[in-house]
Amino acid sequence: MKTNQNYKKLNESYLFSTIAKKVNEYTKNNPDKKVIKLGIGDVTRPLCKSVVEAMQKAVLEMGTQDGFRGYGPEQGYDFLKEKILKYYKKRNINLKLDEIFISDGAKSDLGNILDLFSKENTVLIPDPVYPVYVDTNIMQNRKIIFLEANQENNFLPMPKDDIKADIVYLCSPNNPTGAVYDKSQLEKWVKWAKQNNALILFDAAYECFISDVNLPKSIFEIEGAETCAIEFCSLSKTAGFTGTRCGYTIVKEDLIFDEMSLNKMWLRRQTTKFNGVPYIIQRGAEAVFSEQGQKEISENINYYKKNANIIAETLKKHNIWFTGGIHSPYIWLKCPSNMTSWDFFDFLLEKAAIVGTPGAGFGKNGEGFFRLTSFNTNENTKEAMERLDKIL
Amino acid sequence: MKTNQNYKKLNESYLFSTIAKKVNEYTKNNPDKKVIKLGIGDVTRPLCKSVVEAMQKAVLEMGTQDGFRGYGPEQGYDFLKEKILKYYKKRNINLKLDEIFISDGAKSDLGNILDLFSKENTVLIPDPVYPVYVDTNIMQNRKIIFLEANQENNFLPMPKDDIKADIVYLCSPNNPTGAVYDKSQLEKWVKWAKQNNALILFDAAYECFISDVNLPKSIFEIEGAETCAIEFCSLSKTAGFTGTRCGYTIVKEDLIFDEMSLNKMWLRRQTTKFNGVPYIIQRGAEAVFSEQGQKEISENINYYKKNANIIAETLKKHNIWFTGGIHSPYIWLKCPSNMTSWDFFDFLLEKAAIVGTPGAGFGKNGEGFFRLTSFNTNENTKEAMERLDKIL
Repeated sequence: MKTNQNYKKLNESYLFSTIAKKVNEYTKNNPDKKVIKLGIGDVTRPLCKSVVEAMQKAVLEMGTQDGFRGYGPEQGYDFLKEKILKYYKKRNINLKLDEIFISDGAKSDLGNILDLFSKENTVLIPDPVYPVYVDTNIMQNRKIIFLEANQENNFLPMPKDDIKADIVYLCSPNNPTGAVYDKSQLEKWVKWAKQNNALILFDAAYECFISDVNLPKSIFEIEGAETCAIEFCSLSKTAGFTGTRCGYTIVKEDLIFDEMSLNKMWLRRQTTKFNGVPYIIQRGAEAVFSEQGQKEISENINYYKKNANIIAETLKKHNIWFTGGIHSPYIWLKCPSNMTSWDFFDFLLEKAAIVGTPGAGFGKNGEGFFRLTSFNTNENTKEAMERLDKIL
Repeated sequence: MKTNQNYKKLNESYLFSTIAKKVNEYTKNNPDKKVIKLGIGDVTRPLCKSVVEAMQKAVLEMGTQDGFRGYGPEQGYDFLKEKILKYYKKRNINLKLDEIFISDGAKSDLGNILDLFSKENTVLIPDPVYPVYVDTNIMQNRKIIFLEANQENNFLPMPKDDIKADIVYLCSPNNPTGAVYDKSQLEKWVKWAKQNNALILFDAAYECFISDVNLPKSIFEIEGAETCAIEFCSLSKTAGFTGTRCGYTIVKEDLIFDEMSLNKMWLRRQTTKFNGVPYIIQRGAEAVFSEQGQKEISENINYYKKNANIIAETLKKHNIWFTGGIHSPYIWLKCPSNMTSWDFFDFLLEKAAIVGTPGAGFGKNGEGFFRLTSFNTNENTKEAMERLDKIL
């Protein structure tokens, strides 16, 4: 038996293990210091009441003869798909139920969608980036071109005529930079995709943090995207589902390449290699989209946004350049005094007992930058920024 | 963008849609007749009390600040892996926690595991078969050789010296035939795998139906399997989890091909393309392995086995050849009077208002055979067999 040799080309990431090692060492040497972690990439607020109640009810149902549900549709129950359809309708995006695929999260779908594409495609990936885009393509030996995101383009790289690629990843609001594309910028990407017969994989996992109605939350707000884009979204950050697992992927029926319907191909992939999201979880997800559910999740989102604002104000006061922090839980800042990412990490830890994430861990263009997140408590975020204020 | 052209080679299966069409027609023409479905491939008994209580508790926890859980380990929580480790230990199989991977079900893992293998491998697949084994390999353009399962070998095909393949699928107790390999048979398969540097993908999804202590429930009861086999298991049939979604895959640390550790490769695949099973579901799965949970699930399994026995006794009375029905929820019978699978389907429906599944739908060797399942109620199964008794 021969193994998939592409796995040998994968790099081990030592980013988070190195951070943990440094923090452990610091704590050991400074047992009296309270370390505040602003490197967290995971939500911390509990599931909202509506979701808990809906799942309680669904669990009980599953224990009764009449309420029990066995195999569900692999692509998700209509009761949930209908809610998502209405959610898109609010932004004047018309979907069909068959264009919505419920999944256990954007990470799974972003990896598995590559099953539908030839290995011969060239992939365009922004740098800095969520490492999953890169590794999943290395596993299938696709040629990768990196797209330079940097301070000059506000970490929102735009297409150029000489860039030829078949698939491009766009994530807006971006992880790790928090930068958000506006409509005219996404229009240019859709135009480029059409000119190049390319496909946009649009990662909208952070759309719920956008509060400016003029900023697009979905690629399908852009005319023509239905024939050149797939959208991935998740309830992980929207409703604190990182440990509850539910997302959705939109593949329009109009999306045709090589005379093949990507909608039908994805349906075939999911019915063959997936058995759907637990009924209980889908009932929880449904509750997120109820009027009360939307009110409750927005309280949590606003809680995080308050933290992002506290961080942003402190950086502004000290004239530190940053992106994100408004329509995103992430703040991506230029390290002061031209420090490298890791120098600034050590400086923050040693001088203020604050932990963040060195930008260099997200790609070569992340060097000299640093990510802070808004997922700690209001109290801790305030205290961290008071400390930062003193040492800058 | 070029699509994966292998999808064009996939056949549409019309098995279950044709059955549904025929049943609808019959019901329309015979509105007064009570149709009894013994074609069901899905469990019907509700989740047991221990599982419901554990999930109720976990849902409440997720709604509190202290109990909330975000991202869990992609390969599953230790609390569940420890239970599975003990479950194997009862049969003197020693596993390490790192060799157990929790997933959303055997179907997902059986499809996704192929990511680890070169496209150049030849795959050996029994016929008749669970169609997922075939389709997932067609999607990746692997050469498939079929292994003849038939009445002569009791639908338990054995290796031959002239069969050369890199990967073989074994499912015992088998879907669709219900046939079970004994120890000496599996020993021969392990020997063959080692001689051919081949890998066994062992689908143990129906192991809970085995009640004879001398029959192997796991491939790891066979000496040497740890260096040539991966085992897939699921709580779908064990604990009625078809709509609740939890399974596990065992990849031993000793499993090395091309100097690559399949255990490390699978860990990398799962951490890159999967985010773990919901915490709530893993707590439910944990309860399956408690003393009380095991007692409760065995009541359901025995309920189904009682049905299987009712069917088996009726077939014996009429000297109809069959496999399964003892250590399996499936009964695989030879159609009487040399009828074809579909002729017998029509005969059963027209004469007795019973629905089953034509064996021809599972591969060419299924022609002339028929699958009945034990997932209906005791009352309906009894009534169906009384009807069958009269028409035979």
